Amino acid sequence: MNEFDLIQQFFSKAHSKRADVVLGIGDDCALLQPKSGYQIAITTDTMVDGVHFDDRLNAADLAHKLVAVNLSDLAAMGAEPCWVSLALTLPSSDTNWLAEFATMLANRLQHYGVSLIGGDTTRGPLTLSLTAQGQLPAGSAMTRCGAKAGDLILVSGSLGDAALALQQEKIASLPVADIAALERRLFRPIPRIELGLAIRQFATSCVDISDGLSADLGHILARSSRASGHALGATINTDQLPVSAAAMLALGAKQAALNALKGGDDYELCFTVSPDLLQQVLAAAEQSNTPVTVIGEINQTGKLTIQYQQQHVDWRAQGYLHFS
Amino acid sequence: MNEFDLIQQFFSKAHSKRADVVLGIGDDCALLQPKSGYQIAITTDTMVDGVHFDDRLNAADLAHKLVAVNLSDLAAMGAEPCWVSLALTLPSSDTNWLAEFATMLANRLQHYGVSLIGGDTTRGPLTLSLTAQGQLPAGSAMTRCGAKAGDLILVSGSLGDAALALQQEKIASLPVADIAALERRLFRPIPRIELGLAIRQFATSCVDISDGLSADLGHILARSSRASGHALGATINTDQLPVSAAAMLALGAKQAALNALKGGDDYELCFTVSPDLLQQVLAAAEQSNTPVTVIGEINQTGKLTIQYQQQHVDWRAQGYLHFS
Repeated sequence: MNEFDLIQQFFSKAHSKRADVVLGIGDDCALLQPKSGYQIAITTDTMVDGVHFDDRLNAADLAHKLVAVNLSDLAAMGAEPCWVSLALTLPSSDTNWLAEFATMLANRLQHYGVSLIGGDTTRGPLTLSLTAQGQLPAGSAMTRCGAKAGDLILVSGSLGDAALALQQEKIASLPVADIAALERRLFRPIPRIELGLAIRQFATSCVDISDGLSADLGHILARSSRASGHALGATINTDQLPVSAAAMLALGAKQAALNALKGGDDYELCFTVSPDLLQQVLAAAEQSNTPVTVIGEINQTGKLTIQYQQQHVDWRAQGYLHFS
Repeated sequence: MNEFDLIQQFFSKAHSKRADVVLGIGDDCALLQPKSGYQIAITTDTMVDGVHFDDRLNAADLAHKLVAVNLSDLAAMGAEPCWVSLALTLPSSDTNWLAEFATMLANRLQHYGVSLIGGDTTRGPLTLSLTAQGQLPAGSAMTRCGAKAGDLILVSGSLGDAALALQQEKIASLPVADIAALERRLFRPIPRIELGLAIRQFATSCVDISDGLSADLGHILARSSRASGHALGATINTDQLPVSAAAMLALGAKQAALNALKGGDDYELCFTVSPDLLQQVLAAAEQSNTPVTVIGEINQTGKLTIQYQQQHVDWRAQGYLHFS
């Protein structure tokens, strides 16, 4: 049995048959039967050794994170995850590594009811690329384009934990359990699938927080401004930013807020809703067992304003934050 | 403008809007509207620098080949190509390389009426991974599973030219135009989209020839045997194998036939049809402007027999050919 037979054997566990997979791995193509009247949401994310991860992540972490970062994009549209294709480039045949990777991949896909329907395994520098597809009723997707002045801005979970986990010197003195919890946020993020489905009918826009709140909210402002023809802005109240107790302990209140604004890799959702739907949104989020917090408001100032104890800080260039 | 803005600018040319692309590049996901009653065929192929290609292929060749190898898989199912996602990993910012790559990518996608709907661009060792999707009426796909004893075996075009182009010492003495023609087969293969669509209603099985005729026909035999419960085999008459004049000149008849049996990378189609449909298939192929040749027959021997001037050679292990 050669390496590629081994891979096929490992990945056969991840084929968990969905009824809409007419033909799975083993032919020139897979065949899928989309639901009538539904649209397909599709996303691709690549993780490269030495660029997106290092030796701190083991094979199981990589499989967990690869699924999470892709499914998080589906969550941001409000799509139900269905199928993934894996392009796996591997430097050498390491049976243990492959077994660990494939086992966690199968575990995660099964958890979300997703089938691995194909891909390509090649020799080369370690590169993991997943293409994930979900379905949702035509016209129901959340996008980055629909935010309106007056909408409230909400985020799920807590922000900045993954970014903090990268700063080892800042967390070294924390209790062991806190360090472990922060590292889980970085190594094993959880996509907010249920929340995306729950808020789909209410939200005017949504994005997943992968580049950091200020950058990703910037994407909503930029695209919603272009779509509406109005120069939209936003105010964020840093006092309201949800940060974990561990982040507060490690950084103090002001730095924890800054870290929550700039930190990436949290894979929480940031979304906007009309104020009169807030109660319904909060009820829907609770039904999905996901904590959400109102952190600010969309306005027509054309800029992102950060409020921190009476200080106002302007945000202009997307992805850059000038914090005084 | 940074490198990734540049890439976005280059690739914007390849977005050529299809009406079924509800939302293209620029959000968390793209949104696609599949045709009602249709199925989706999906395939992924990865090309790694130093493994699948070397410096002989320039950026335009790579874009051309990346599209071709993926669309060839759609052709083998009889699917109409629709959408592609590109996972591009690049070692450095080379504007000329990117411009050449993106221009040819856009050219090829436009040629086939395909939209680039997303992907991911990352820094790292040069790796090109494309996921291509096509559509076809539910139940109409050709697979590797339906060949029956008595079916005729046909192939498109000529076989072995791409493999011959790799053997530089064997083609060095050929006329310059012949060398160029052989190298075009290797660097710029053409997927047999029109043929796939034309024969879809007639063929009992189909595969694209990427690993070599004997290996890929082996895939049809293995999967059709498993599907039918019969140990299927085949006889190939090497006298009938379509080889180019250049291959005949460079190798002589016997070696050209061997090369046609084993050589990969041709991206021709190999398919099976019931003998009573042969005239209709030949007419359909002619309508698609694609030469096809009958090269043998499916039988119940459980092995692949190669006939070369009265010699019979058995084929057993998939992908390996014992040729005396």
